[in-house]
Amino acid sequence: MYRIAVLPGDGIGPEVTAQATRVLAAAGRRFGYEFCFQEGLIGGIAYDATGQPLPQATLDLCRSSDAVLLGAVGGPKWDNLPVHLRPEAGALLPLRKALNVYANLRPAMVFPALAQASTLKPEVVEGLDIVVVRELTGGLYFGEKRREEIPGGQRVVETLVYTTQEIQRVARRAFELARKRKKKLTSVDKANVLESSRLWREVVTDMAREYPDVEVNHMLVDNCAMQLVRNPKQFDVLLTENLFGDILSDEAAQLTGSLGMLPSASLGDGVGLYEPVHGSAPDIAGRQLANPIAAVLSGALMLRHSFGLEEAAAAIERAVATVLEQGYRTADIMEPGKHQVTTTEMGRLIAELVERGELV
Amino acid sequence: MYRIAVLPGDGIGPEVTAQATRVLAAAGRRFGYEFCFQEGLIGGIAYDATGQPLPQATLDLCRSSDAVLLGAVGGPKWDNLPVHLRPEAGALLPLRKALNVYANLRPAMVFPALAQASTLKPEVVEGLDIVVVRELTGGLYFGEKRREEIPGGQRVVETLVYTTQEIQRVARRAFELARKRKKKLTSVDKANVLESSRLWREVVTDMAREYPDVEVNHMLVDNCAMQLVRNPKQFDVLLTENLFGDILSDEAAQLTGSLGMLPSASLGDGVGLYEPVHGSAPDIAGRQLANPIAAVLSGALMLRHSFGLEEAAAAIERAVATVLEQGYRTADIMEPGKHQVTTTEMGRLIAELVERGELV
Ligand SMILES: [Mg+2]
Ligand SMILES: [Mg+2]
Repeated sequence: MYRIAVLPGDGIGPEVTAQATRVLAAAGRRFGYEFCFQEGLIGGIAYDATGQPLPQATLDLCRSSDAVLLGAVGGPKWDNLPVHLRPEAGALLPLRKALNVYANLRPAMVFPALAQASTLKPEVVEGLDIVVVRELTGGLYFGEKRREEIPGGQRVVETLVYTTQEIQRVARRAFELARKRKKKLTSVDKANVLESSRLWREVVTDMAREYPDVEVNHMLVDNCAMQLVRNPKQFDVLLTENLFGDILSDEAAQLTGSLGMLPSASLGDGVGLYEPVHGSAPDIAGRQLANPIAAVLSGALMLRHSFGLEEAAAAIERAVATVLEQGYRTADIMEPGKHQVTTTEMGRLIAELVERGELV
Repeated sequence: MYRIAVLPGDGIGPEVTAQATRVLAAAGRRFGYEFCFQEGLIGGIAYDATGQPLPQATLDLCRSSDAVLLGAVGGPKWDNLPVHLRPEAGALLPLRKALNVYANLRPAMVFPALAQASTLKPEVVEGLDIVVVRELTGGLYFGEKRREEIPGGQRVVETLVYTTQEIQRVARRAFELARKRKKKLTSVDKANVLESSRLWREVVTDMAREYPDVEVNHMLVDNCAMQLVRNPKQFDVLLTENLFGDILSDEAAQLTGSLGMLPSASLGDGVGLYEPVHGSAPDIAGRQLANPIAAVLSGALMLRHSFGLEEAAAAIERAVATVLEQGYRTADIMEPGKHQVTTTEMGRLIAELVERGELV
């Protein structure tokens, strides 16, 4: 039995996680696995109920589960709280820290049925399937910062720290992932300027010897930002430090043209955290307009990366592709000539395909 | 009289600067300005002749000129020299430092005739005309760096420093530029995480009060990387710190699909430096295959930003657009049904249009 902590959160979070768990349950029935779902409070709704955006009970639940499925947090209602009580800064960051997830996996893939949603030409993005592996706990975002008065104004100093061990653990994730995919890894850095990037490149180069079956190349971050636009299909797995990954994973996501479709995984050595890339979209919450596919695909990533259930994960991904090919669309990706369905309907269609291999 | 130092450099540098100066001379005749061109050595060719990639005589020439036009430097022949003798690290960086150019202007524009060269859909990029203003002398690239041994490996610490004054001087450039263009400035930062970005945002917000006619908005860098793909035409002038600008200016350049066409300007409070974005392309050097348009447009930027000759600058830009509309193409942008011309021919066509207003 796999214990899954479900944290629906705010906005459309509850709607989309409901469909994700429904699809996971269907996959369990199909392939003979038992999933046990336990809900916890997080975000604004948790603050309203308990005064804390990340209550201790939720943390305890997550730590004692095998994996965590998160919906989304935040909304205008909580934007003016002190930073440490706001849903993002007060819940998401502490949760990642508590779970010590240091590798953020951001797939960017284009389902054939949706290739025209991209601003790029269809032939450039059709069949795109890349994963950005971003280091999540080090670098500039977590360095010491200070601001001081100087004549004529102020001066800010921030620091960026990386250690061999921090680079090794995320690089290993990327190599293992590359080995299971197309055996092609692009490590991104700015080694012509940054000392941290030179250490990064050395560590990756060393580790490459353990993975002779994986083709490794190194690319400067500014060139990578260009290459993602020029020819994104040249990539399979991209490995980057925290700040570069923040920028490049969002750029890669936008290439697909369907942000509402993209899942993510945050992995450490223990419990993994899975969540859609999209936000809580309070403007459409509760109206059956949300696209549950990002949450559903986050569930598939959980099966693959936390539980090693590759067959079930692939079945969910195939079901999503099939439902889209058959012309079903939620409001955000609706086009003329397609069938618009609700959040719940979309979840039901995918779940059915996963469980029976066909639509009823 | 305007004194222009011309540093052709390596690879295709001499071919393209020759056409740029030809076009500048034509603009001078048309509009009644006198330009005096004086050549200096830089890069690998300077190393071969003098043992230094940036000889003192070249530095003296640049400092005593009104502006500098650079071709390109570097090539495989010099790649294995010690870093301080290599063309890029030993010539370009010291030259920028010597001229104290702190604002790098990188226009990304799509000529209607070349819109299909982009990997983005024509309707997304047609008529694109944005400028990235990048801070060029501060931030992470120039901070102190150190590497130390720790148990189990090494640890690198780098520092990022920005002062109020460093931000003010580049921001002022961007505001002044925005005022002359569409009066729209997007300042890019990561103010939700970085203290330097919070200072950046404060300085820009303060300065905005002096420019009530300029519409200012602030955007996070990862969102900006997305928005450049989603809808690049929403932007006019983008202002960023050094590292973010390095990444975003290259991403923006790639949106155009025609890297061989893009000029740049590096400005301080004295002599400005103008150069094509493309490199020295040693593989095609000396074969009349190079596209001189980036160098020609760098000359137009010089007229605009160093000499304030807006009418002459605009005439050059219009001439380039016209020559392209008439179907003339260098090898790099050749398509079926167009007329392929040499580097020299392209320069002649543009110069003629600038001087006479028509092709002979
Ligand atoms: Mg991001
Ligand atoms: Mg760059």
